[in-house]
Amino acid sequence: MTGIALMGAGRMARVHAASIAEAGAHVATIYDPVDAAARALAATAGARVCASAAEAMGDSAADAIMIATSSDTHVTLLLEAVRTGKPILCEKPLASSFEEARGFVAEVGEEAARRIFLGFNRRFDRGHASLREAVKAGRIGRLEQLIITSRDPYPPPLEYIPRSGGLFRDMMIHDFDMARSIVGRDIVSVTAHGSSVVDPEIGRLGDVDTASVTMLADDGTIITILNSRRSAFGYDQRIEAFGALGMVLSDNPRQSGFRRFTAEDPGTDAPILEFFMERYGPSYTAEIRSFIACASEGREMPVNAVDGLMAIWLAEAATISLKEGRTVRLTRPEDGF
Amino acid sequence: MTGIALMGAGRMARVHAASIAEAGAHVATIYDPVDAAARALAATAGARVCASAAEAMGDSAADAIMIATSSDTHVTLLLEAVRTGKPILCEKPLASSFEEARGFVAEVGEEAARRIFLGFNRRFDRGHASLREAVKAGRIGRLEQLIITSRDPYPPPLEYIPRSGGLFRDMMIHDFDMARSIVGRDIVSVTAHGSSVVDPEIGRLGDVDTASVTMLADDGTIITILNSRRSAFGYDQRIEAFGALGMVLSDNPRQSGFRRFTAEDPGTDAPILEFFMERYGPSYTAEIRSFIACASEGREMPVNAVDGLMAIWLAEAATISLKEGRTVRLTRPEDGF
Amino acid sequence: MTGIALMGAGRMARVHAASIAEAGAHVATIYDPVDAAARALAATAGARVCASAAEAMGDSAADAIMIATSSDTHVTLLLEAVRTGKPILCEKPLASSFEEARGFVAEVGEEAARRIFLGFNRRFDRGHASLREAVKAGRIGRLEQLIITSRDPYPPPLEYIPRSGGLFRDMMIHDFDMARSIVGRDIVSVTAHGSSVVDPEIGRLGDVDTASVTMLADDGTIITILNSRRSAFGYDQRIEAFGALGMVLSDNPRQSGFRRFTAEDPGTDAPILEFFMERYGPSYTAEIRSFIACASEGREMPVNAVDGLMAIWLAEAATISLKEGRTVRLTRPEDGF
Amino acid sequence: MTGIALMGAGRMARVHAASIAEAGAHVATIYDPVDAAARALAATAGARVCASAAEAMGDSAADAIMIATSSDTHVTLLLEAVRTGKPILCEKPLASSFEEARGFVAEVGEEAARRIFLGFNRRFDRGHASLREAVKAGRIGRLEQLIITSRDPYPPPLEYIPRSGGLFRDMMIHDFDMARSIVGRDIVSVTAHGSSVVDPEIGRLGDVDTASVTMLADDGTIITILNSRRSAFGYDQRIEAFGALGMVLSDNPRQSGFRRFTAEDPGTDAPILEFFMERYGPSYTAEIRSFIACASEGREMPVNAVDGLMAIWLAEAATISLKEGRTVRLTRPEDGF
Repeated sequence: MTGIALMGAGRMARVHAASIAEAGAHVATIYDPVDAAARALAATAGARVCASAAEAMGDSAADAIMIATSSDTHVTLLLEAVRTGKPILCEKPLASSFEEARGFVAEVGEEAARRIFLGFNRRFDRGHASLREAVKAGRIGRLEQLIITSRDPYPPPLEYIPRSGGLFRDMMIHDFDMARSIVGRDIVSVTAHGSSVVDPEIGRLGDVDTASVTMLADDGTIITILNSRRSAFGYDQRIEAFGALGMVLSDNPRQSGFRRFTAEDPGTDAPILEFFMERYGPSYTAEIRSFIACASEGREMPVNAVDGLMAIWLAEAATISLKEGRTVRLTRPEDGF
Repeated sequence: MTGIALMGAGRMARVHAASIAEAGAHVATIYDPVDAAARALAATAGARVCASAAEAMGDSAADAIMIATSSDTHVTLLLEAVRTGKPILCEKPLASSFEEARGFVAEVGEEAARRIFLGFNRRFDRGHASLREAVKAGRIGRLEQLIITSRDPYPPPLEYIPRSGGLFRDMMIHDFDMARSIVGRDIVSVTAHGSSVVDPEIGRLGDVDTASVTMLADDGTIITILNSRRSAFGYDQRIEAFGALGMVLSDNPRQSGFRRFTAEDPGTDAPILEFFMERYGPSYTAEIRSFIACASEGREMPVNAVDGLMAIWLAEAATISLKEGRTVRLTRPEDGF
Repeated sequence: MTGIALMGAGRMARVHAASIAEAGAHVATIYDPVDAAARALAATAGARVCASAAEAMGDSAADAIMIATSSDTHVTLLLEAVRTGKPILCEKPLASSFEEARGFVAEVGEEAARRIFLGFNRRFDRGHASLREAVKAGRIGRLEQLIITSRDPYPPPLEYIPRSGGLFRDMMIHDFDMARSIVGRDIVSVTAHGSSVVDPEIGRLGDVDTASVTMLADDGTIITILNSRRSAFGYDQRIEAFGALGMVLSDNPRQSGFRRFTAEDPGTDAPILEFFMERYGPSYTAEIRSFIACASEGREMPVNAVDGLMAIWLAEAATISLKEGRTVRLTRPEDGF
Repeated sequence: MTGIALMGAGRMARVHAASIAEAGAHVATIYDPVDAAARALAATAGARVCASAAEAMGDSAADAIMIATSSDTHVTLLLEAVRTGKPILCEKPLASSFEEARGFVAEVGEEAARRIFLGFNRRFDRGHASLREAVKAGRIGRLEQLIITSRDPYPPPLEYIPRSGGLFRDMMIHDFDMARSIVGRDIVSVTAHGSSVVDPEIGRLGDVDTASVTMLADDGTIITILNSRRSAFGYDQRIEAFGALGMVLSDNPRQSGFRRFTAEDPGTDAPILEFFMERYGPSYTAEIRSFIACASEGREMPVNAVDGLMAIWLAEAATISLKEGRTVRLTRPEDGF
């Protein structure tokens, strides 16, 4: 049984603690600057509370490290964690800015970065994973178009907007990673469009709530990402991959197979899942299982800090594209825009 | 181009006249006891009105005969038509009673009966035909269960009930034929259940409006037919064939691919088709094309007067089963019940 | 937190132990005649192993009792449990025969029987529950037809068949209960048909593997249950309720929203769930939560030993109907057949 | 009964001739530079062949004019037709170039242009029309995103590519019109991306076969159009309109409700319709009915030459955007780019 040093005791840390138990591992040590939170989670999880991250990570009962603190602390904790030589899982995003992410990967080196598991949990969603595997296995021939739709049920509180980094860095970052993982090619251009049609107040705060990004891969594949901060009918998370031999979809799953047929509603489905814990709950568990398996077997991480950097890079490019009203051409993260 | 002698000028005759034109044939002669109806249809179709059925059938411009008059005249006209030696299509049902149908086939002989095309148009419905072909082609392995659901959008006028012959002979007769055409085995027992839950008045008139019939084929295949005189959401016409290797369904088609997703209706389809002309309209045309092709090439009719007799026989058995509250065992139509 | 005395340490007991933990309760005591099994489960669940059922049930740490032993011990353990006065949940079936079940309810009285939670877990399936609620709420008006399809992915081992009690008592019993819970009326007749088309060996052992049962409720509602021991495409569990104002379906849920579209497969869904733990897993948890809630609040059990008796009674009637080839009319369980 | 002067006797003219008959009107006169074609169609339709367009249009038996000749003759014939004062339907596109279209509207004036019915038949597709009506009726609240997917089953012959005017003017023009008709707002920017991933030969001929266009409406609505010259699974024609209160889709209709469920294909639908005559056949008939109704009642045309100009204008903007790799801002067609 693997012991985990868990950094953080907030919402994501609690989600991970539950997944750790389900995966047959256990939380050995916990560190959180808010001591009460750490104590509460430790009591449930049967873990030891530590006075510092270094102590928690260094404990011999901890074979692996999970970082689930706020984004601005990720890089500092990652640098500390890398020094222990233990397997690491870090929540997304890798860093709180593109510069910081780029600096981190430069500092630890690409090889070490590839050994850090980055928590893009949607890669472990059953439908999305089936789609990616179908594409990789050539089921649709050469990929030609990829369309990712991602709509939240309702916008975050307005006070969150200014510190969110903007829709591209905060919300679309999952889709940038998903696009990269499915296309498997270099992205050579990013063009972003956006509006604040859901709530003009979001526009006044300098952000958009509705956005469309078009990216070109180096082989001509066209990628379209559609985001909205609000979806009246539930969490709208779909992917469409279109290729020479056909198409695969990862459509919204339903709460159940319930349907009703009346004169007014001639065939109505059960509701789409409400939000991310309902839709992606199982993907968190699958992610933690994958991390623990890779860690125990010393395998390379399937999604890692380099992926984290690339996603932030694309979010940065989209931000610039929208602001300057132009297509941003890309070479490598090191080269800027 | 084939010339058709059309018996009848009522609703079904007009439907057939349109299908004849679409199939590239033409109505040569028309006979209907109601002269004005005959004249009206003749004017549209460019046909000659005849003073008797014999004259219309005998005209040298008529290469084939279609009988679309009221059920009680079918056998008389069929006997007349058989004498001409021309190809014949007769609307369902073959006769107005089981006795009459059995007498007719006995009189003309089974061989001649098999050369009379009987108008069970649903056999030519695209979805139902795909299902039957899949079963025949062994796509689901050995057939084990067959479930036919057939529900009208609304009941007929109450005054029609007493002269309808009852739900089994009037409505379920299509499903008996469909069952036989898919199963392709002898039916050895019929058990019927029925209620008048749609309209108690129908019960008072001695009929049922909701019915379920279970039949066994000689190889153990179990057949279930479900009928209702009313369906709030449209014309409900589905078939499910279940076998050793899987299942095929012929589900209700939709008016279009329209769907709506709102908080109240999280995924609602376009309406199901309203009633039989909307659903089975194309199957009438396909039926007439099939008849004309078989007639010109001298091929055996794919659905014929023997099928017509067998369907009436099963309807008779269901009527007896319901009345006597027992399972009716079957051998051959000649043997009675 | 509620402490549970768990009778049994086999498969169902382990499923319940996990659900108990998820529901925030805990297993206090365990009894199983196979001591090693009891010890193994007790270790995981943190429970005390007892030398007898009476000891386990009587322990003051146990506020409620769950019986998850083999069917032939249910009644003996239930009688013991009833004496403690504690809330009881018993796995289905209530007893190993209709006579035994009838005797038990007669002995403890109907009032006590209604306070025993009986483990018909499918009532807690999300799709089935939505359907029942829609019917109860009048969403489809007066119920007219109910069709329950229940097909296992593959038959049980042949050696199980002789001691299974037959398909009606072993497999269709869930559907009898489901039918009663949706219709909410007295069943007045049962007609059964069956074949052994999946495996003739099952027929030679005196059982059927494919069956259809038609039941009439006292208000004319027609109920059809279709069972098969084998379904090539997965666990086929569907319910269709048809009424004056429309229809509700509980269709098979899918593993995910994955679909593929190619020239050969023009729109193929993700797989249907494989078998009962995959499909009904969440319903076991919901069932245990319901029991614990009812137990703590002293509420009447939503599904109880009287329901258990009624389901066995219908299974008995179906068995007689199939054997004697006749419709069995029903009055009350006390009256026999 | 309305008499139509039909310009042209090619494929589209024959489609229209059939729709004219179905709509209860008739072709009075026909003109086609290829006399044999004119004679052949005239024989079937019972029309008079004329030696010139002027003669055919001027005939007193013709109450209305339909232009279904090659694109390069549209404007000349339209100018001739306008002089007769009779109602006019002209096949799309309005003209063979943006300059010509703009010149034509300038010459006849916007008011006259609005009285010319332009043959954007997809507006009359049942699914697309339901979607547009739902949007107009406020069923999804304020429209925020519109996504139009349009993929042909296979590319045109390579020799057609150079004279097609390019994918935007030849294929996406339908989608530009559809977007305008649903959004009902001014389009303020067009950004196009394209690749030749279906067939590199198309790229060598200077065109693209896969394209994505993003447009912004003046109220911030984001419009995405996705085109491909090839779709392995059939004619892929879908529209998604997403708004504040929900989403409406016009999905691909199916040939029938046929589905199969096997171990390999756990739920496979009937094929999507093959190509445009199969999918949009009924929309041609609906279009002609609409034209005849508007013409007889003297109503304004629901889709007219101004719409034709606007669609060509957007296609021109997309062509420039792709070539110059920039977003094209739009004001009015008169202002250029």
